[in-house]
Amino acid sequence: MVIAVLGTGGVGRTLAAKLRELGHEVRLGTRDPVATRARSAETSLGRWLEQHADVPLLAFDEVAVGAEVVVNATRGTASLEALGAVGAPQLAGKIVIDVANPLQGGAGLPTLFVSNDDSLAERIQAAFPEARVVKTLNTMTAALMVEPGRLGDGDHTVFLSGDDAEAKERVRELLASFGWRDILDLGDITTSRGPEMYLPLWLRLYGHFGTSLVSTKVVR
Amino acid sequence: MVIAVLGTGGVGRTLAAKLRELGHEVRLGTRDPVATRARSAETSLGRWLEQHADVPLLAFDEVAVGAEVVVNATRGTASLEALGAVGAPQLAGKIVIDVANPLQGGAGLPTLFVSNDDSLAERIQAAFPEARVVKTLNTMTAALMVEPGRLGDGDHTVFLSGDDAEAKERVRELLASFGWRDILDLGDITTSRGPEMYLPLWLRLYGHFGTSLVSTKVVR
Repeated sequence: MVIAVLGTGGVGRTLAAKLRELGHEVRLGTRDPVATRARSAETSLGRWLEQHADVPLLAFDEVAVGAEVVVNATRGTASLEALGAVGAPQLAGKIVIDVANPLQGGAGLPTLFVSNDDSLAERIQAAFPEARVVKTLNTMTAALMVEPGRLGDGDHTVFLSGDDAEAKERVRELLASFGWRDILDLGDITTSRGPEMYLPLWLRLYGHFGTSLVSTKVVR
Repeated sequence: MVIAVLGTGGVGRTLAAKLRELGHEVRLGTRDPVATRARSAETSLGRWLEQHADVPLLAFDEVAVGAEVVVNATRGTASLEALGAVGAPQLAGKIVIDVANPLQGGAGLPTLFVSNDDSLAERIQAAFPEARVVKTLNTMTAALMVEPGRLGDGDHTVFLSGDDAEAKERVRELLASFGWRDILDLGDITTSRGPEMYLPLWLRLYGHFGTSLVSTKVVR
């Protein structure tokens, strides 16, 4: 598949590298590729771009052209703007995999800027009603998203939320190709409130164990 | 120990019965015992009170007299009022185990009436600064609270949050006496935001599996 990954942070790079490794045609999207390249010369992103020369870095407004799947791996606070730069016409009919979290800084641990009676995934779906939004993978660190077997023999849980059953089935296949076995479809896009509101617990588990390699298994 | 359990709902009764079975001296607290008895003649509470004649039903303002531990098993929306009726002087120095959730009704699934930058447990601790509040057991159904072995061979997780280390140690011992093995101390009382905000996910897991016998194991 042709897949556009929005966001050049650790999550976007990790997902893009894994998807490329699995044989997909992958593009990485950013607001301003020239500025991003200039800024990243001596950084981990610069090294990553050198090592992944077959993953082009493109502007948001061109990265999704011809793509079948768009992955939102931008910061939650920047997601709606980034998807807006991609453009509603480019998102129409496409699967949008939203892995972002609605985290905002402040004193102490981050809090959520939307929760309880709404969620980031719902805001994205509402802003781009013709996109087929699927929330997933937001409940663990990037390294585990693409390699669940790094922890507990891979026996932990990833969630799916979305209104489009066929889109969720395609995302389930992608997750299975990453090694996920316990893939739980919670239901429509409003169910993403659950996994998003789990983040504050995850942040405290991260603090408690001093490692981001922590996840949860739904026991039933 | 002498333990006062506030709340005559399923959670309060389940905890009271288990604590009595373990040999503790247990009292059940309610706002108005005469009215509660009259109302419950033909209900499950009425039968429970008959079957547990050694667990007296007392008014909030007398139930904690002489108790070492107070368990808040009232509805979240009624918790501060119930604890207020017990009275700050009666709570001073005592361990207050808060198992309630800040759930409120509305259209669709319940939402939280406090979350993100505050929690019910913090509100209780702030309202009764001399109480030693420990948040725990709010992340699963009553039957699992007192018998974790009913699910997954008991291999799932219960959380502890609180400012008083010695109080948490006493609560840990109580949890162990229920059969809990994976007891995770998240830290101070502010960490209760994590387990309380997990509830929306739990409600969706309940809906998905059609049973309340669902819990999570922290994989690390």
